[in-house]
Amino acid sequence: MCGTEKVGVIKRSGSHAAHASEARENGARRNLSPDAVINLDHGDPTVFESYWRKMGDNCTFIIAGYQSISYFADMKNLCWFLEPKLEEQIRRLHHVVGNAEVDDHHIVVGTGSSQLIQAALYALSPPDEREPISVVSAVPYYSSYPEVTDFLRSGLYKWAGDAQRFDKDAAYIEMVTAPNNPDGVMREPVVNRDQGTLVHDFAYYWPHYTPITCPVNHDIMLFTVSKCTGHAGSRIGWALVKDKEVARKMTKFIEINTIGVSKESQLRAAKILGVISDGCLHFGSPDADNFFEYSQRLMAERWQQMRDVVKRSEVFSLPEYPFQYCLFTGEFTEAHPAFAWIKCKETAEDCEELFRAHKILTRSGKRFGSDPKYVRVSMLNREEEFNLFLERLSAIQEISNGN
Amino acid sequence: MCGTEKVGVIKRSGSHAAHASEARENGARRNLSPDAVINLDHGDPTVFESYWRKMGDNCTFIIAGYQSISYFADMKNLCWFLEPKLEEQIRRLHHVVGNAEVDDHHIVVGTGSSQLIQAALYALSPPDEREPISVVSAVPYYSSYPEVTDFLRSGLYKWAGDAQRFDKDAAYIEMVTAPNNPDGVMREPVVNRDQGTLVHDFAYYWPHYTPITCPVNHDIMLFTVSKCTGHAGSRIGWALVKDKEVARKMTKFIEINTIGVSKESQLRAAKILGVISDGCLHFGSPDADNFFEYSQRLMAERWQQMRDVVKRSEVFSLPEYPFQYCLFTGEFTEAHPAFAWIKCKETAEDCEELFRAHKILTRSGKRFGSDPKYVRVSMLNREEEFNLFLERLSAIQEISNGN
Repeated sequence: MCGTEKVGVIKRSGSHAAHASEARENGARRNLSPDAVINLDHGDPTVFESYWRKMGDNCTFIIAGYQSISYFADMKNLCWFLEPKLEEQIRRLHHVVGNAEVDDHHIVVGTGSSQLIQAALYALSPPDEREPISVVSAVPYYSSYPEVTDFLRSGLYKWAGDAQRFDKDAAYIEMVTAPNNPDGVMREPVVNRDQGTLVHDFAYYWPHYTPITCPVNHDIMLFTVSKCTGHAGSRIGWALVKDKEVARKMTKFIEINTIGVSKESQLRAAKILGVISDGCLHFGSPDADNFFEYSQRLMAERWQQMRDVVKRSEVFSLPEYPFQYCLFTGEFTEAHPAFAWIKCKETAEDCEELFRAHKILTRSGKRFGSDPKYVRVSMLNREEEFNLFLERLSAIQEISNGN
Repeated sequence: MCGTEKVGVIKRSGSHAAHASEARENGARRNLSPDAVINLDHGDPTVFESYWRKMGDNCTFIIAGYQSISYFADMKNLCWFLEPKLEEQIRRLHHVVGNAEVDDHHIVVGTGSSQLIQAALYALSPPDEREPISVVSAVPYYSSYPEVTDFLRSGLYKWAGDAQRFDKDAAYIEMVTAPNNPDGVMREPVVNRDQGTLVHDFAYYWPHYTPITCPVNHDIMLFTVSKCTGHAGSRIGWALVKDKEVARKMTKFIEINTIGVSKESQLRAAKILGVISDGCLHFGSPDADNFFEYSQRLMAERWQQMRDVVKRSEVFSLPEYPFQYCLFTGEFTEAHPAFAWIKCKETAEDCEELFRAHKILTRSGKRFGSDPKYVRVSMLNREEEFNLFLERLSAIQEISNGN
């Protein structure tokens, strides 16, 4: 997965744990009625709201009415709409976390990583071929890939499904998602042929979700603020791109598609990423709050709670993840993915229907090219919703066992 | 153009003129070297920076670190990522200015109006046709239309060029830009056949550019913050859409393309639009600053200066615009478009080359489906650049006359 033997300098996180439970209570302020529908279909990362609430004014973003009026951010940069402050903080954060090599890469900013996926497909597709290039990813793949690839019926690229079944003797683009959405597994490319180009989607390769085992180093690597800091509403993603021409074409896509990317979101993201890097580095200070340490604890707690519920019966099962040494935390940890990939073992053919009957919206395994016995459940909702989810999960098990 | 006989209540602007020249000086703070290349190719609306600088803290946007984290803005709204505050201010501004009917329309927010153009094409294209639907616009058309339509070689829609030459007996989408980019002329549809659907691009239908002769009322109308307030870096546009299903499909496009639109930009735009509406309504107060009055004066001054230079020789010509009664200002005014559509009358076959030789970047008439004797020149740059442009325009004329 790492694509290089070189391992960067390990920057250790602070030793002062964040008071996760306390701040979580602050965040869980909505009053859900006991029979409310809980939407765990999307990976809306509101779990992190509590952390940002706790951080207070440190993270407040202020912009005067006359600032950032122009379309342009830096005319000298290949990605002319990328705010220099954001570029600086992206590079800094990767150095601090040690999860990706950035020094040999151009940065292209996008309106979330969805736009960057399309930009990458545009950049990697041969412009003059009669047939569109095949786009593949191994099952279970991120459910948006087929839709994002095919919604405009592009003559440049076309969704070709499961990478493991791809046997066409032709050029292809493989999406490699690591950790994988929906199942949290670290991934390698599977087609492995000369005619292929790879897009590495590293949206979830951050310490709160998975051990950082090496700084990754590939030709095109996608990241997003949504899953890193939780600021999904900002719609900021970035691509680390080795080849200058590919970076230029990706920039061109974004120029035609949206003439750049919100300056306000970029500048606020720069501030937020800066606060995270500061928090990671200032260990020893009693006020220091390491975002990843706090968030990892939160995710670990949730996973533990869910595993405790699930193991009480034989109705559901969850993936197991290996303990691995995390270069960032300096500890052996297992993954605590942003999604639970739940299998209904016995009682139901259609797991999504089962959950829906109990007012829990999930995403069916079918959407990921997989089996309807699976569902993807977001682990990133607010505390109150997560707790209600656990209660209902428990209730489903009791009913199923009673049957 | 107005599509309705009904004329809304006329809201008059304030009577206190903004001190345009004074604030312009504040804005023109960059030091251009005398031989600098001036880029008037893009319509980068930095001319309005001076106004926003003058407005000071009234327009400062502040957002705490924990706010607007979610993907969602309003789950009950058809356009689920549209911030309610922005919707409110968009409706209010149209009521205050009287330039568009909004009460029967859904609002879809986009990452600039470029994204909304694509969303409209997606929504209006029949999904199951073998042949892509034709997209047309009358020459000279906005130079981005062909590129935006064709860059992904979509099987849904295809650029078919000049609407005036469109003779295919088949469904089509006509882009109607009013006032038109590049030439500032108010436009009506030209194909006028039953199989057509229309997208009205009203990016420039604001009082600083053109007299507001009626509140427009069409099925799909596009507007953008960039050209209204000058905040191009925010990438905020909106569509007013009558048909619910079309609005839903446009929302779907934006969902797939970028999973919504920057919350920061939306909330800041809401603030800025609110300040503009306040300024238009509070006439009589000595501190009131009517944005459109200020900006109209600025644009009128620039056009007057340019016309004064151009008329000194026979080298160039400019379009003339009729005096019309503006419902907003309550005065007879002519248009002062965001772009000058300049014709080189004698000296040059290729007007863009002529300007380039004098270090002025413009956009060739060819890009608009028109003649290379024309260029489009942005009137929206900063004061210093505009003044340098006038000097060079004058110099070109002297050289040409000397030949």
